Amino acid sequence: MELLEQMIREKGRVLPGDILRVDSFLNHQIDPNLYDAMGRAWKQLFADSGVTKLLTVEASGIGIAAVAALHFGCPAVFAKKSRSSNVPGDVWSAKVHSYTRDTDFTVTVAKAYLTPADRILLIDDFLANGEALMGLKSLADQAGATVVGAGIAIEKAYQPGGERVRAAGIRVESLARIASMGADGSITFC
Amino acid sequence: MELLEQMIREKGRVLPGDILRVDSFLNHQIDPNLYDAMGRAWKQLFADSGVTKLLTVEASGIGIAAVAALHFGCPAVFAKKSRSSNVPGDVWSAKVHSYTRDTDFTVTVAKAYLTPADRILLIDDFLANGEALMGLKSLADQAGATVVGAGIAIEKAYQPGGERVRAAGIRVESLARIASMGADGSITFC
Repeated sequence: MELLEQMIREKGRVLPGDILRVDSFLNHQIDPNLYDAMGRAWKQLFADSGVTKLLTVEASGIGIAAVAALHFGCPAVFAKKSRSSNVPGDVWSAKVHSYTRDTDFTVTVAKAYLTPADRILLIDDFLANGEALMGLKSLADQAGATVVGAGIAIEKAYQPGGERVRAAGIRVESLARIASMGADGSITFC
Repeated sequence: MELLEQMIREKGRVLPGDILRVDSFLNHQIDPNLYDAMGRAWKQLFADSGVTKLLTVEASGIGIAAVAALHFGCPAVFAKKSRSSNVPGDVWSAKVHSYTRDTDFTVTVAKAYLTPADRILLIDDFLANGEALMGLKSLADQAGATVVGAGIAIEKAYQPGGERVRAAGIRVESLARIASMGADGSITFC
């Protein structure tokens, strides 16, 4: 998506450790017009998928999914993150590894909010290793719901997540796909 | 707001420990039409306040603020929560006590995203003891920004937060104000 690529080019910052900082518009400060355009774009891409629910994970995904839900006219659900692996019986849970923090955490969603009738679009701000997305897919699978795809803002296409998630049968639509980031701060899109 | 009160009446659940569970539409599963109506209501209430930025705290506030930001035509910023009191130098921070979890946490926001020119509307899903709201006010104060008010979804008006925050000079607009919750699950609005 041109708008997102342009904002990444103009406002994104490449930091040591393969970090792309986009917190001035995507995941700390929120540009609502960007979110709106992203929601509209995913709605066009998944117009024929019969989406009944958006599923994301806290924290950065929540605002993106809430605005996208306006376009889809369906609810959004955000999975909660916890350091504890003890979960109550009324939630689905999955373990997710964070490469950024080098730690595991548990994502949970109340069983009441994912049903076998649901056709779920996964939503997240970043796709890198695919851990979060595979965790969300696991929650949907446990509920017997159908995953129709994933709407991603920024995919680091040089990392293995995209291939991994697509190999799992998920249609991934990333609005900006980064081919490489240079030590000089340069960003090349696919 | 009639829509919110109606949803609380129909879908809210009163649980032991003064808990009002509204996670089927407000803070786990998200009803985007409700969020949209809430954003519109706050925009009407604060139409003349010259709001330049919405400020909330993760996680439940993020989606609400993102959708409201569409109505205000300004960015939203979400403060991050951390268990650690060690914060880097480029953030404002405030300590917030959680009565629900009986623990302290630190809320932080990057200094870059709150400026003395900002006229800030605080946004949150609940107002009970006022701890989160006072923490957000502290972040805005540290930045030299002006707090024009607080847009709250549900205020537990029988708890001290509303009085405390109003006594601090903040105009609070709560879309549903709960006067009491009974052990039988009944909910009475102000």
